[in-house]
Amino acid sequence: MRITEQDLEALSIGAAILGTGGGGDPLIGKLMAQQAIREHGPVELISLDEVERDDVVFPVAMMGAPTVFLEKVPAGEEGYLAVRRMERHLGKSVTALCPIECGGMNSMIPFVVAARMGLPVVDGDGMGRAFPELQMETFHILGVSGTPACIADEWGNVVLFETVDNFRLESFARACTVKMGGYSHLVDYPMTGEQMKNTAVRGTVTMGIQLGRAVQAAHRNHSNPVDAVLAATRDTIYGHGIALFRGKVVDISRRTSDGFAIGQARLQGFEEDAGKTMVIDFQNENLIAKVDGQVVASVPDLITLLDPDTGHAITNERLRYGQRVVAIGIPTPEIMRSEAALAVWGPKHFGYDIPFVPLERAYPAFYQQVGVPNEKEKYLLQSSDASR
Amino acid sequence: MRITEQDLEALSIGAAILGTGGGGDPLIGKLMAQQAIREHGPVELISLDEVERDDVVFPVAMMGAPTVFLEKVPAGEEGYLAVRRMERHLGKSVTALCPIECGGMNSMIPFVVAARMGLPVVDGDGMGRAFPELQMETFHILGVSGTPACIADEWGNVVLFETVDNFRLESFARACTVKMGGYSHLVDYPMTGEQMKNTAVRGTVTMGIQLGRAVQAAHRNHSNPVDAVLAATRDTIYGHGIALFRGKVVDISRRTSDGFAIGQARLQGFEEDAGKTMVIDFQNENLIAKVDGQVVASVPDLITLLDPDTGHAITNERLRYGQRVVAIGIPTPEIMRSEAALAVWGPKHFGYDIPFVPLERAYPAFYQQVGVPNEKEKYLLQSSDASR
Repeated sequence: MRITEQDLEALSIGAAILGTGGGGDPLIGKLMAQQAIREHGPVELISLDEVERDDVVFPVAMMGAPTVFLEKVPAGEEGYLAVRRMERHLGKSVTALCPIECGGMNSMIPFVVAARMGLPVVDGDGMGRAFPELQMETFHILGVSGTPACIADEWGNVVLFETVDNFRLESFARACTVKMGGYSHLVDYPMTGEQMKNTAVRGTVTMGIQLGRAVQAAHRNHSNPVDAVLAATRDTIYGHGIALFRGKVVDISRRTSDGFAIGQARLQGFEEDAGKTMVIDFQNENLIAKVDGQVVASVPDLITLLDPDTGHAITNERLRYGQRVVAIGIPTPEIMRSEAALAVWGPKHFGYDIPFVPLERAYPAFYQQVGVPNEKEKYLLQSSDASR
Repeated sequence: MRITEQDLEALSIGAAILGTGGGGDPLIGKLMAQQAIREHGPVELISLDEVERDDVVFPVAMMGAPTVFLEKVPAGEEGYLAVRRMERHLGKSVTALCPIECGGMNSMIPFVVAARMGLPVVDGDGMGRAFPELQMETFHILGVSGTPACIADEWGNVVLFETVDNFRLESFARACTVKMGGYSHLVDYPMTGEQMKNTAVRGTVTMGIQLGRAVQAAHRNHSNPVDAVLAATRDTIYGHGIALFRGKVVDISRRTSDGFAIGQARLQGFEEDAGKTMVIDFQNENLIAKVDGQVVASVPDLITLLDPDTGHAITNERLRYGQRVVAIGIPTPEIMRSEAALAVWGPKHFGYDIPFVPLERAYPAFYQQVGVPNEKEKYLLQSSDASR
């Protein structure tokens, strides 16, 4: 599939939804990627099946606090610099790029570099959403080393990491990124095609494009864009999305700490949710949604606020007092829910003393009606003890 | 000159004096270096004249808050790891090591690695004292790039820096060092023998040994060790040391911030200084000494507190309420006082809105009597306008 400027338009809508409130607004990334495609031509998106076992795949991304990107547009050359540096370090030429996260701005960054270098982008990533830390990758969970990794900044500074584990990579790269002015361009988890096939969440770029196209179609047809988003999730590896809450933002707090945007949003319900309150906690991305104190959705399931009129995702940095929103939940792909995976990005990792509550268990009636992918059904049976 | 365990005994005394209150207590470094010499034999100390133009010289050091070293003795393998990594990075074999600072703990670290690798250590460093930041090097002032640089920690994590300037190196390496648990082992400013000859402060390891031997001799002879230290500075590139103040510690404050030990010591005078107060500000190293509000010594001149009974330097981390001390000043070598040098480590750099006051100007009568090296005389004439 050849990715054009129009596809990136759709992807930016879908990636914002998969960004679960964080990941950085895809807008700036989209402009960078569209510019690159205008200059160098479309980029080939290849499926995991098309990846060769001995391919050399580099995940490329930006690292840093999304709130910084809004004020400081990246120059666009840094990702290229980081990729070239990593090639030199490994003594190998890269044959394909991929996203580390298909949610938010980082859905776009591989296309910026791929267009310039004439490389394909692999249709898969390491989380199927957005997450705030570098070890929060299926690549990590499934044994790929995050290092050697390389970050570069707009002045041409480069730092190379060789760490004994991926948590140290996160720690060191985060510290340097803060000193680089709040963001950097990153290549980590350099891997073979075989490793990519075995560890990536598959089809996630396509998922982003599909969600975006559903929103665009709803606009053309004057149909409900939120319903369109939910319908577009139906036959995916994710599972059916669900409208969790309709409400108005009555309180929003956020602070930037150690390079993260941390905060909480409070929604007052209207329509069928009148009289109820939803509270959403986020650390870059939305982590936990509660209705009247009851957890209804939790990381790693996807929690996103949509504009009810446009179906566009509202990132936390753009969330404003008085805004009317629909909170939706999308079950995370099965690969993201393993015991090992939940140890890395389940609620406990983020400091919440609660088990992961899959959407299918919080809303059994809905999921009985719409059905869940076979794998998920199995998971629901397995996880019927609440201890997880 | 072959450096033996006994020489390191003397060096540890002298390096503490050149450490100007910071640099980390040489004790732990000495134990590491003595152990290495016991295992692998003595280390050749070569003068700058003996360095070959095409030598490959690596400065090696530890980076971090000295207060951390007291609680956490380094394993000793990390410096070796950093040197090997840098060799691999450059594709060159190192032929000599040198200190980045001859003051404090870092006077010893090159000997730890040199003994193990069978390499000589060059008798010269980048500051002739101790300083808190990586760009505070004559190497930097005189145009050597601090990068590629490499830090390693006790777990085997390695970070390589390629920065566009040496201030970024300091910033990034400091941030990673904090995340490494407070200290790291460092190779920076890798250079040719020719660069080393042109940029180093010469003979500074010998200076440290000489100061230490003076103290040891005073102990044997039951003569005054403080006088012995001052006398030992006489015919050096530094200039004659001077006793600034005799007093008792009546207040000491320190905090660790961003990897630095920052604070202030207050001394109440006794003997000829009875009724007077000295205040010393430090950031790892002593920066400014005032007597009754008047600046009497300032960075980059050396300000050190000695135990009046032993002549041993007292590092700020060991300074305690009620302690009796003699504050001494030693003029810094001329290469450290250039316009460019003062811009990097003069009082203004550390946030003091005062010009650098050379000891020779604060104490003209004393220096008229003892004399100053010719170069310094020239400096004193040139700097007679107080604007500097």
